[in-house]
Amino acid sequence: MALRLKDIQSPVKTEMLEFEHKFRSFMKSKVFLIDKVTNYIVKRKGKQMRPMFVFLSAGVVGNISERSYRGASLIELLHTASLVHDDVVDDSNMRRGYFSINALWKNKIAVLVGDYLLSRGLLLSIDNGDFDLLKIVSEAVREMSEGELLQMAKARSLDITEELYYEVIRQKTASLIASCCAVGAASVQDDPEVIAKMKEFGLNVGMAFQIKDDLFDYGTGEIGKPLGIDIKEKKMTLPLIHVLQKSSSADKRRIKRIIKSNKQNNKKVQEVIEYVKANGGIEYAKNVMHDYYRKSQEILDEFPDSEFKTSLGQLVQFTIERSK
Amino acid sequence: MALRLKDIQSPVKTEMLEFEHKFRSFMKSKVFLIDKVTNYIVKRKGKQMRPMFVFLSAGVVGNISERSYRGASLIELLHTASLVHDDVVDDSNMRRGYFSINALWKNKIAVLVGDYLLSRGLLLSIDNGDFDLLKIVSEAVREMSEGELLQMAKARSLDITEELYYEVIRQKTASLIASCCAVGAASVQDDPEVIAKMKEFGLNVGMAFQIKDDLFDYGTGEIGKPLGIDIKEKKMTLPLIHVLQKSSSADKRRIKRIIKSNKQNNKKVQEVIEYVKANGGIEYAKNVMHDYYRKSQEILDEFPDSEFKTSLGQLVQFTIERSK
Repeated sequence: MALRLKDIQSPVKTEMLEFEHKFRSFMKSKVFLIDKVTNYIVKRKGKQMRPMFVFLSAGVVGNISERSYRGASLIELLHTASLVHDDVVDDSNMRRGYFSINALWKNKIAVLVGDYLLSRGLLLSIDNGDFDLLKIVSEAVREMSEGELLQMAKARSLDITEELYYEVIRQKTASLIASCCAVGAASVQDDPEVIAKMKEFGLNVGMAFQIKDDLFDYGTGEIGKPLGIDIKEKKMTLPLIHVLQKSSSADKRRIKRIIKSNKQNNKKVQEVIEYVKANGGIEYAKNVMHDYYRKSQEILDEFPDSEFKTSLGQLVQFTIERSK
Repeated sequence: MALRLKDIQSPVKTEMLEFEHKFRSFMKSKVFLIDKVTNYIVKRKGKQMRPMFVFLSAGVVGNISERSYRGASLIELLHTASLVHDDVVDDSNMRRGYFSINALWKNKIAVLVGDYLLSRGLLLSIDNGDFDLLKIVSEAVREMSEGELLQMAKARSLDITEELYYEVIRQKTASLIASCCAVGAASVQDDPEVIAKMKEFGLNVGMAFQIKDDLFDYGTGEIGKPLGIDIKEKKMTLPLIHVLQKSSSADKRRIKRIIKSNKQNNKKVQEVIEYVKANGGIEYAKNVMHDYYRKSQEILDEFPDSEFKTSLGQLVQFTIERSK
């Protein structure tokens, strides 16, 4: 039977409910417009995977504490800030089926509310002396922005190597999940080795997570999801990168011409997808994903057994088995 | 003879040069695109008033130290981050005569580089344990975004009171200058009273500074500067707010109709400017500005005499006498 998030989170169910309550209070402002926007953000919240990683990681290595809540809130405030900024970044009008803040209240408000949320996160940590948690999260913020910019800088180059692809997804996605796990661990104990191990665990999970995400572009997820969006945006991901590097010169030219073209049609994009499938690109990416998955489980195995550890393992399994 | 910034900064001239050097190194990234953008930002730097406030405030109450440099850099990194974000916010294509980052590299990069600079600022403080400085600056970030959003939320209301106007400019402008002075003081000594006094000094300077800025819209500055921009954007500032609250109902309706209109022409805007002038709006705002100026000098007088104190006093005088 497929795993359900509801079941996975059972050891931290109380914490997740309590967290939602606390998180709302941390966002509260005396400026009405800010509350209006943040209430709207809370309504469209997603799977709440980040706080779950924080609480489960904390549970694996210690006793979940007030610091765990503040750590989860710090990450969630900064992540929400970056989501709001991303709405500007992506120039997208929809996110998770809702209209984006950007479309509703314009760029200006999006940027300012993002800055506001960020300052609230900072003050929450500073006022409580959670400097170690703040450091972990600040490093993730730096990595995420660097990773996105690295990807953009290289996006025009269709010759991106597998190595650079790993570097980009490590910075832009894996570093956030790594920081969730590290913050969870650091919130309940201060052994640097334990914290580093938890971070390494999260890093491997994050890599697997992003490769899974990139695979959806090739129709590996729910039926009816639009395919080939990355291809249309000339964003090179693992299945394609891998296939191209062992293609014949003629094939390389043909595929690159389609990707570079500014008037791609669905038929042409489908041609790329088929080419990647026929040449083992999906298979290869899935193998790499499973390698990261296995690596993460190996690290997790080193921790003592507990209901938290079981759930954390299931959460990772869920991220690579999900269909959306 | 008019004051020149070059002369005012003489007691901290070495520090300002050294600061420029350090600041560049703090922005450095291994991602080429980031360096390209930050180099461009450094080139278009303005009057460097913020670091000057930091170093002079530090000099007034103690011995300028490495912490003073880091405090100034933290503020400058966060301010630069917000400038980059503001380019998105304002949707403006020019700033200080240069094309904005936004226009050159698009929104996406602007937001990401802003986030990157911010994370560098955070890490600079965290890695060096400057948590007290970080707290002062984080509070300013919260106030600035709240202030801007408060202004936007009330912008449509032409009935904004003087009280609300002061609240807005206190948050969106004065809090930054206040934090420069507080950070300068806190970087060299830890007496909370001294730090609070320096902050109060900066707050009064900031209020005077913003009122001065708002007065330029009425042609009180350099000849040839475009007038009435605030009026066109329906941004209510002190001269107009004050005049409207004592106008006859008929005048109120007429002026508000012009401001509300979406097809204002220069002649109509000029009519508002003339009305404000004829009814003592400029006079009144200048008086309020001088009150804040006097208040700031009174606070400064309580500190022991030094070349730093003399320069700091001149710097404040400069901000209210400047013509652009």
